[in-house]
Amino acid sequence: MVEQQSQVDFLFSGGTLLTMDKERRVITNGALAVKDGRIVWLGPAAEASGRFAAAQTLNLTGKVLVPGLVNAHGHWAMTLFRGLVDDCTLEAWLEKIWKVEAATISAENVVAGSELAMIEMIRSGTTCAADMYWHYGETTEAAKKAGFRMVNGPIFARIAGFEKHRNTTYNMALEYLDHYQNDPLIHLCLQLHATYTTNRSILEEAAQIVKDRSLMFITHASESRGEMENVRQQYDGMTPIEVLDAAGLLHDRTLLAHCVHLSDAEIERLAETGASVVHCPSSNLKLSSGVARVADMVKAGVTVAIGTDGTASNNDLDLLHEAQLAALLQKGVTGDPTVLPAEKVVEMLTIDGARAVGLDKVIGSLEVGKLADLTVFDFDSYNLTPCYDVYSHLVYATSTHDVSDVMINGRLVMQDRQMLTLDEADVKARVRAIAQKVRDL
Amino acid sequence: MVEQQSQVDFLFSGGTLLTMDKERRVITNGALAVKDGRIVWLGPAAEASGRFAAAQTLNLTGKVLVPGLVNAHGHWAMTLFRGLVDDCTLEAWLEKIWKVEAATISAENVVAGSELAMIEMIRSGTTCAADMYWHYGETTEAAKKAGFRMVNGPIFARIAGFEKHRNTTYNMALEYLDHYQNDPLIHLCLQLHATYTTNRSILEEAAQIVKDRSLMFITHASESRGEMENVRQQYDGMTPIEVLDAAGLLHDRTLLAHCVHLSDAEIERLAETGASVVHCPSSNLKLSSGVARVADMVKAGVTVAIGTDGTASNNDLDLLHEAQLAALLQKGVTGDPTVLPAEKVVEMLTIDGARAVGLDKVIGSLEVGKLADLTVFDFDSYNLTPCYDVYSHLVYATSTHDVSDVMINGRLVMQDRQMLTLDEADVKARVRAIAQKVRDL
Repeated sequence: MVEQQSQVDFLFSGGTLLTMDKERRVITNGALAVKDGRIVWLGPAAEASGRFAAAQTLNLTGKVLVPGLVNAHGHWAMTLFRGLVDDCTLEAWLEKIWKVEAATISAENVVAGSELAMIEMIRSGTTCAADMYWHYGETTEAAKKAGFRMVNGPIFARIAGFEKHRNTTYNMALEYLDHYQNDPLIHLCLQLHATYTTNRSILEEAAQIVKDRSLMFITHASESRGEMENVRQQYDGMTPIEVLDAAGLLHDRTLLAHCVHLSDAEIERLAETGASVVHCPSSNLKLSSGVARVADMVKAGVTVAIGTDGTASNNDLDLLHEAQLAALLQKGVTGDPTVLPAEKVVEMLTIDGARAVGLDKVIGSLEVGKLADLTVFDFDSYNLTPCYDVYSHLVYATSTHDVSDVMINGRLVMQDRQMLTLDEADVKARVRAIAQKVRDL
Repeated sequence: MVEQQSQVDFLFSGGTLLTMDKERRVITNGALAVKDGRIVWLGPAAEASGRFAAAQTLNLTGKVLVPGLVNAHGHWAMTLFRGLVDDCTLEAWLEKIWKVEAATISAENVVAGSELAMIEMIRSGTTCAADMYWHYGETTEAAKKAGFRMVNGPIFARIAGFEKHRNTTYNMALEYLDHYQNDPLIHLCLQLHATYTTNRSILEEAAQIVKDRSLMFITHASESRGEMENVRQQYDGMTPIEVLDAAGLLHDRTLLAHCVHLSDAEIERLAETGASVVHCPSSNLKLSSGVARVADMVKAGVTVAIGTDGTASNNDLDLLHEAQLAALLQKGVTGDPTVLPAEKVVEMLTIDGARAVGLDKVIGSLEVGKLADLTVFDFDSYNLTPCYDVYSHLVYATSTHDVSDVMINGRLVMQDRQMLTLDEADVKARVRAIAQKVRDL
């Protein structure tokens, strides 16, 4: 009697599966089947043999399949300004960047920069990322077209000189939120640039929308000493965390970028409210903001994700590199080499990152029923030879060139290091043309 | 009348030359000619046109030619133990590593690990590196065979359990030094593992050889708090720097690895004596040793190079990554984002690195008469798009996959990302076989 084969869209087979499920199973010589955008089976390759009729088979021999990585904080279109302003104070940096941005930002330019960002993120294994930038509607469409999973939403801010771009109104926000509320790739949030670039009435307005719609809420918080001082002056001696807490904006759908300057009590409060943090070590170092107390936050039970921030303060979107830096830096500054071990950092890149952006029910681990966001690392590379421990290599030794294939929502967006949904040469040409205008400013 | 064309071996033409010469000239659309292993001409490509008959021409369009990078500190063969011991205290790390090393180190294994290290270093643009490891004679031969420029020399140390490998005798040292004294690729030094793994009589012996032969002297110094304490106990309250100074081993041919724990007076003393430092930020963070005061050292006039250290504490030999970390880290810990600007960090990778290993007269910059150690970066990559500043990209945005071609001593060792002098597949297979034995220990 012949057993009926199950029809699937993709069968990955023959490599190591780093599941990041609750048991943290690592399946050597494993297989994983994808159908209709979801993981429908995973287990030992021997058990998959003959069981599936796959439209497409991917040979994982010598490779490692991991849940797609989550870049929980960035400003995608700032690829346009990569390396334009380095090695100067935050004030000088902001002055130059804001001037250039005000003069060059348009929907068309933001889309070009964001497409370059998606190429860079996919090439470093990222399948889901949060963005905070102007023209978010157009960027959202670009992400849908590229098949990239995006966390995005209206941004409230008041920054002098940017009125035409940034002044999202209440109605504009609702219109965007209504339009994308059931999109398979776009995950909604409401964003506030920061407490120091807003005021109490906007905070209240934002809090109301977040509450009414049970939305994710994302903002920059406690990044620099200057911000701490500005917020104290503006809000009667309060810290950014206290301002957000008072506005009802600290809860388990809150994601705070940076959090470099937190007191013990504030770390406890984040743990208590379930608010998450996204750590951006390169940017924090480059702008001399300091080093976030990630080890303390993790110990207190705060979910900490990793983010690249924008390329104007990094200057790349290589999440692998950011993860390595996160692991190394905590050891160096705490004096304890056992903090943030490799496995924890891989959690931060995957399941914790998913939790931080409110998506741990649907992505962040290899489990049946979850969406097929998958990254394949080629472990044959010289820099991953030999291999004693997969977690260690992912954090301490991988480079972007080791990422061979990336699937998002069941669709391959990179195969054998070839981009499938974005025209890399065209995107680079468009960005270079924009850069020429920036140079001429 | 037809002008006589000059015969050269190689002509690089059409890209940007980052010379790192005294004037820090950057020649866009430049050309560079190589003959008999040396740079014989460089300038605008237009001036090169028709002037040279080249045996081989390399098109630099869209590329940047820089002096080959110098990795001033490492333990090459430790690639064999990449990722074997992570996230633990220095004591636990040393215990595990030393045990595994004592059981597996042989000349054959060290050569395999060192060949993998050279592949990794060449692929990240490195053309010259210092090594400190057992079986240095065999590694030296491997470097010559690979066409790699090596700084190496006999190592004095007394570590229990390693007598059969490490106890270099006075006569063994002289034999090695005599044998390689005029080698075009091997640059000699005398090495001491560290003050805490030696004693006063060995220090005196080493100092005598260094003085008699005007040799480079290399040692680990002031890396960890534990070392500082051990040295204080062993040497009547002195620091490693004081011990070396008293032995006459601080001079302008001295290179000290790490120097994480230095007083102001010690920094002044290094500047005064002309001793150089090699900064290894990944390793210092990973083992929680701390952060070296690089900005202060540079300000005081100390030459600071960059090193990867070994892969057991890094876990890669990516010098570009190390340079980015060096730049970011000083900004983060000093609170001053203007320290170690990108151009200074490129100096550390090239001309300062060359000076630190005693070779600034012959390598480290693109100048007529210098040896042809050259690295080509392909600036077409997504992560280098757009480009406003070459120095910035080299430090903050490059990745190993951007290195396309590498020449050492006038010989191409990598072309179009293909290794020419090392059999990558064979080396990886040999290293994996050794790793299997390590797993079985």
